[in-house]
Amino acid sequence: MLSPRSVAVIGASDDPTRIGGRPLSYMISRGFAGPVWPVNPKRDRVQGLAAFPDVDALPGVPDAAIVAVPGALAEAAVEALGRRGCPAAIVFTAGYAEVDEAGQAAQARLVSIARGHGMRLLGPNCLGLFNAPLGYFPIFTASFENGWPAEPLPGRGRVGIASQSGAYGTHLFGAARNRGIATPVVVTTGNEAEVTLGDVIGWMAEDDGIEVIAAYSEGVREGPRFLEALEAARRARKPVVMMKVGRSALGAHAARSHTASIAGDDAVTGAVLEEFGVHRARNTEEMLDVAYAATPRIYPARNTLGVVSISGGAGVMISDAAEEQAMPMPPMPEDAQERLRVLIPYCNPANPVDCTAQVFNDMTLVGAFARAMVEDGGYTSLIAFFTQVGASPSLAAKLRAQLNAVRADHPDRLWVLSVLAPPERVREYEADGYLVFEDPSRAVVALAAQGRFGAAFARPPRAAVPLPTVTLPAEAPDEAGAKRLLEEAGLPAVPEAATAGVEEAVEAARRIGFPVVMKLLSPDILHKSEVGGVLLGVADEAAVRAGHARLMANAAANAPSARVTGILVARQVSGAVEVALGIARDPVFGPVAMVGLGGVFIEVLRDVALRRCPVDVTEAEAMIRSLRGFPLLDGARGRPRADVPALARALSALSAFAAAAGERLASVDVNPVLVLPEGEGAFAADAVIELG
Amino acid sequence: MLSPRSVAVIGASDDPTRIGGRPLSYMISRGFAGPVWPVNPKRDRVQGLAAFPDVDALPGVPDAAIVAVPGALAEAAVEALGRRGCPAAIVFTAGYAEVDEAGQAAQARLVSIARGHGMRLLGPNCLGLFNAPLGYFPIFTASFENGWPAEPLPGRGRVGIASQSGAYGTHLFGAARNRGIATPVVVTTGNEAEVTLGDVIGWMAEDDGIEVIAAYSEGVREGPRFLEALEAARRARKPVVMMKVGRSALGAHAARSHTASIAGDDAVTGAVLEEFGVHRARNTEEMLDVAYAATPRIYPARNTLGVVSISGGAGVMISDAAEEQAMPMPPMPEDAQERLRVLIPYCNPANPVDCTAQVFNDMTLVGAFARAMVEDGGYTSLIAFFTQVGASPSLAAKLRAQLNAVRADHPDRLWVLSVLAPPERVREYEADGYLVFEDPSRAVVALAAQGRFGAAFARPPRAAVPLPTVTLPAEAPDEAGAKRLLEEAGLPAVPEAATAGVEEAVEAARRIGFPVVMKLLSPDILHKSEVGGVLLGVADEAAVRAGHARLMANAAANAPSARVTGILVARQVSGAVEVALGIARDPVFGPVAMVGLGGVFIEVLRDVALRRCPVDVTEAEAMIRSLRGFPLLDGARGRPRADVPALARALSALSAFAAAAGERLASVDVNPVLVLPEGEGAFAADAVIELG
Repeated sequence: MLSPRSVAVIGASDDPTRIGGRPLSYMISRGFAGPVWPVNPKRDRVQGLAAFPDVDALPGVPDAAIVAVPGALAEAAVEALGRRGCPAAIVFTAGYAEVDEAGQAAQARLVSIARGHGMRLLGPNCLGLFNAPLGYFPIFTASFENGWPAEPLPGRGRVGIASQSGAYGTHLFGAARNRGIATPVVVTTGNEAEVTLGDVIGWMAEDDGIEVIAAYSEGVREGPRFLEALEAARRARKPVVMMKVGRSALGAHAARSHTASIAGDDAVTGAVLEEFGVHRARNTEEMLDVAYAATPRIYPARNTLGVVSISGGAGVMISDAAEEQAMPMPPMPEDAQERLRVLIPYCNPANPVDCTAQVFNDMTLVGAFARAMVEDGGYTSLIAFFTQVGASPSLAAKLRAQLNAVRADHPDRLWVLSVLAPPERVREYEADGYLVFEDPSRAVVALAAQGRFGAAFARPPRAAVPLPTVTLPAEAPDEAGAKRLLEEAGLPAVPEAATAGVEEAVEAARRIGFPVVMKLLSPDILHKSEVGGVLLGVADEAAVRAGHARLMANAAANAPSARVTGILVARQVSGAVEVALGIARDPVFGPVAMVGLGGVFIEVLRDVALRRCPVDVTEAEAMIRSLRGFPLLDGARGRPRADVPALARALSALSAFAAAAGERLASVDVNPVLVLPEGEGAFAADAVIELG
Repeated sequence: MLSPRSVAVIGASDDPTRIGGRPLSYMISRGFAGPVWPVNPKRDRVQGLAAFPDVDALPGVPDAAIVAVPGALAEAAVEALGRRGCPAAIVFTAGYAEVDEAGQAAQARLVSIARGHGMRLLGPNCLGLFNAPLGYFPIFTASFENGWPAEPLPGRGRVGIASQSGAYGTHLFGAARNRGIATPVVVTTGNEAEVTLGDVIGWMAEDDGIEVIAAYSEGVREGPRFLEALEAARRARKPVVMMKVGRSALGAHAARSHTASIAGDDAVTGAVLEEFGVHRARNTEEMLDVAYAATPRIYPARNTLGVVSISGGAGVMISDAAEEQAMPMPPMPEDAQERLRVLIPYCNPANPVDCTAQVFNDMTLVGAFARAMVEDGGYTSLIAFFTQVGASPSLAAKLRAQLNAVRADHPDRLWVLSVLAPPERVREYEADGYLVFEDPSRAVVALAAQGRFGAAFARPPRAAVPLPTVTLPAEAPDEAGAKRLLEEAGLPAVPEAATAGVEEAVEAARRIGFPVVMKLLSPDILHKSEVGGVLLGVADEAAVRAGHARLMANAAANAPSARVTGILVARQVSGAVEVALGIARDPVFGPVAMVGLGGVFIEVLRDVALRRCPVDVTEAEAMIRSLRGFPLLDGARGRPRADVPALARALSALSAFAAAAGERLASVDVNPVLVLPEGEGAFAADAVIELG
């Protein structure tokens, strides 16, 4: 698909501006090395090449074929290609699943034909792809008509673009070119009937011609291949920058109107991207900024930022941005600060380092300051803010010489030059090895992303989380049954006993210790409090007896048809932080674990963390710590610190349970989990398991 | 200061690259119309102009004078200028408050000399200013050495830049120029010893040569003039875009190291900017995007966004951005959608409107779609996303003709073209009247800002809030006294009585109704619960008697030296939402009112809204509605809706109290305010007033 030695164009046009003409024209003018075979029943020659009336007449089996014929003919063309053994078809033809149900059926036929012949199929309804170094341009974009050179592709880096949208994919490619970023390979996937975005990312992860992957998606359609591809990219140390649109309610609605996508939850996709260290870009510019800053291929796992500036104000601005990006800006060592203060008496040598207008008189000071920051400060990322000095006829050359001397000794750092300079001067600085950003705040976002890539690359592959053996019951268990299942999987519940009569309840309460909570047990009642099925603070034996009678009366009155299987007696825990754990099944990515603090945090603020199941204890703790409400578990408001490790173990155990339980498990809701002070544990106080 | 007819340069240098030489060189080459008088005791001529040995020798009184002499000589120069009646001095000289205490003293002397002569003084330690249309360049930036034309200033719009930082101010000016935005007037304020940022914004609000104001600050030093200036700009319908750095803890720390600024709280400044409809930009690029989009001077008070696109994906991305910016994207009317569906069968005609690749065959469809959006959809802002089509040799001219025909009939809309095109093509589109953004998400941010400007311009000036008569007691009142003071100002308290003995307490409780709350009254105890001074749920007369004894015992044990003036008996309210109201005194902007939801919202999430006092009831309600936790007052979690109007009245009354109370009022903390269900009111349950 990406690197064929021969290409057929089914529906080739002699007009180089038509859909069936453009790929041919581009491949001829960009010198594709192998044979290109136009197929056109009405012409002997197309754009100067010998043409063939149909697929069967081709002089050989093409490694790839473009299908650019009208809807009615596409199926036959794909069938003919498959019969001849062509391994890859790129289908431009539209009018399939994006249109109506008949189109969906036609698309399903296309896929079944391709699969029947073991042929990969890109599209249908796609714009195509290109691999510029090979002169391979099976794409009908008008981009190459605009007078921009396409080959050799100018610019730095080797960024592959994988985009569901054709129009947006070429927009991105054009914008990258304008920024001086090379994009040798661009693939648009259209309807993704067979080849998906995951396939393309996977190919790029393995392709030596690609160093950075920029992806665009309106909704991931296929989970396993996508996950495999992200892991392959991580192992290959290739950063993935991805724009996944539809994150807002309005956007998600627009996405549904636009594609027939059955995209899973946007938040789940976001969690998956985070898991693999993918940078989720919020807009095109951030996408390009991060990809651009990835081109030096320096990914510091422990990234720190040092700033040397001639503007105190810019230093403050950069500090604001660094804090937002959680990028550390540690101060310079005290002795180095002392030395700098000798060089420039009123400078600020901490970090940001302000070397003041003093440097206009003596540019060697810039070199001394920059060297101190690299060698004494040890920063992995550096921003030198020199604004218009970067273009000053009298000063720029001196500045460049000073910085280059330091850079030459430390090429392993990420160097950003924040200057205002004309494009040709910017290209010179880039050739020296600097990333050039006019806006220093944008530089911070891009640098922080490189550190996150580094951290993701440095992580060992996800350790296999040991899964318990789970045997789900025939029907949804009651609360006691649910808790027993989870307890067997390693998620402890509050000490409790399912009791069958009033004397058994009294006995259990005595054993567990007062006060206790009493709850109705019934497989038919999901929300006990709604039927008066929960009693709190039951203080003594008499109260247990009275409570038993009351619960039975409430059940009879409010849920007369429910089967009551007994009464649950449990210790009433106080002083705990209430947390909710849960499992939901995502249509694309399978079971997903959720954690959030109880009360307003989930319901009003939607403050939850998500991760695919299973998660190990380390990941589980990271999820918990990422909550905005985490301070409540960490000793805020004068509370003792809660037992976060125990909560992390519970979350990990729940996720392993869900991963082991299989597709019949629809959801789990463990709410609340009572998290006691450090060392005292975390216990499920309620659990609901739903089966599908 | 901004438009003199004659200029003196004290410390003029013959070298056009020195600090005392650059302004002269710039004014000569840019043709300042009036006389320019160099002062230099060592030369007869400076840069070809007749020079004078000192200020007294000048042939006239200059309208403005540049002071570019070394520190020791600056004071004498300012004094001499003042004596001759020069009304404005621009002091480049550094070594003042930014350095040390001696510098602070020297700076105070400078100000006192200037004020003594009624002379305005810019700086010291400033880079200067320029007013390009006059050829007036009292500035020592190197920017004009870089081969960029400075006069006539190219570009669109008339954006004035007011910047505390010289280096950053010129960075902004250079970046604006690179973007094709004209900045005829730039003023840098340096140490702001006399002229402040507020002065400069005020001048620009009145200057007909300025349409948009871009300001940069590390901390506002002077409140009243700044407020006056923002209100003047609002009245003149001139948008203010401001970058106030130091919003993060790290940034604020860096700002303190950088300047001797006594900036008030960053959050308070943020609230002030919001009050006047100032757009607070997060980075340079957003600053320029918003200023650029302001240049057509179209500020729709009710701004809606319509999107016409050839990429469904871009439409989704724009929808995401619009939701984040709270910019409405209402759908097209149904009948218009029907009509569009006839034109292009598989288009998506709602909004974003996707007119599909069909338009490549027939560009008149773009015109039809765009016209429908303007005339039927009635959108005030439009984004047309056409990516590389905007540069296509075969299509761009047709696209332009189609859009221009619609635009010509509706020049009152904000039209954005999101295209990828070379700079010269972009300039053509701009000349047609479009704003051109490569990144459509950035366009949304800039367009949404224009709507907020419009809404701020449309607001009537802040109505005077009637202030109560407040007589503060000689020393801080106890809780009962505090509540009485606030109740007199219109903030009702929970029904309660201050009682002097146990029988009076029983009598009061009977009158108020059980259960009651009992609290110690003492002017010496601020936090009652810490000494065991609060009893909740006191259920009957016996409990009142027992409680009385217990409170007295707790006071004796835990606060033996406190004077106990009695016991407060109050109704215990249940079913209320707890809210905190407060007043703090900002060193720059005076008393500030705060509202936040109780518990985790304030302590963990810092979810509060701030506004200068006084606020009227409408503003108060807007503050309450802006809280992230507002859903809790609005019926979330199955609660009844709370009495938000009553809470707004309470907040407004508290703010009026603070505004009337004068400088002795240090702070007020009304926590909790119990907000009952709709129609039932909001009552202060505790109040602490601190006096300074």
